[in-house]
Amino acid sequence: MAKTDKSRLCQLGALVLLLGTLGTVLAEADPESVIKYRRASMKSLGGHMGAMAQIVRGRVDYRDQLVPHAEAVAAVSKTTLKLFPEGSDFGETRAKEAVWEKWAAFEKAAGKAEKAAADFLATAKGADQAAVGKAFKALSDACKGCHKSFREKEE
Amino acid sequence: MAKTDKSRLCQLGALVLLLGTLGTVLAEADPESVIKYRRASMKSLGGHMGAMAQIVRGRVDYRDQLVPHAEAVAAVSKTTLKLFPEGSDFGETRAKEAVWEKWAAFEKAAGKAEKAAADFLATAKGADQAAVGKAFKALSDACKGCHKSFREKEE
Repeated sequence: MAKTDKSRLCQLGALVLLLGTLGTVLAEADPESVIKYRRASMKSLGGHMGAMAQIVRGRVDYRDQLVPHAEAVAAVSKTTLKLFPEGSDFGETRAKEAVWEKWAAFEKAAGKAEKAAADFLATAKGADQAAVGKAFKALSDACKGCHKSFREKEE
Repeated sequence: MAKTDKSRLCQLGALVLLLGTLGTVLAEADPESVIKYRRASMKSLGGHMGAMAQIVRGRVDYRDQLVPHAEAVAAVSKTTLKLFPEGSDFGETRAKEAVWEKWAAFEKAAGKAEKAAADFLATAKGADQAAVGKAFKALSDACKGCHKSFREKEE
């Protein structure tokens, strides 16, 4: 086989590979669905946090619900990074461009929230009410911290 | 201020905070807080259902999140009846008077949703995708059924 033929074959191979990769990416979830999923997940977090706030402040008598709420928050907050794939930055989203432009900082902020959620869950399983209050504040602050830098304010 | 003074002040602050929290816990839940808790719980359900809809329809690749979402829905939907105590029928709520006037029917509808959520969770743990779709529809219908009779339409 002549060198140029080989070279062409290589180019062709690379092209096939590239198209294949693109194909996989394109076949993956469309960004609009990802954004819908992300917003719904965040809505669930907002709901649980609002419910837990009432329990933690002692305003309602649903203390036995604290752990299920905390479990949901811990589970969903583990997925944060996966909810922001490249290309999911348009339309019905309040995600700032900073998510992708400052990915390392976003990763750190999301990791902090994930850790705070795990810590809160562990604390909620115990009986130390003061610790629960403190861990809830830490979790709430971690959510707010991420939102402040990476989410547009509501219009 | 000396360091020990500061430290004592912190301790005192923590004690006041703790007593304050206890005081609140001992006080009975006021209806407004119950309504806030209820709306937040329902919001979490709405979020999870929206997220699961994207998974079940195969629009996103977060299949591993289906069980955590389903667990949250199963846990929260168990509490429905407790979320509607007598006297929590005013202000920021879309709960119809029918909840309390037709309590037996409400109980039945809420029970149906609770069962559908438990069934869906069991199915989501398995690999039968068609069964997952069917169980999700049953759950979704059970939510809607209850909302149709007992929740005012959004204005």
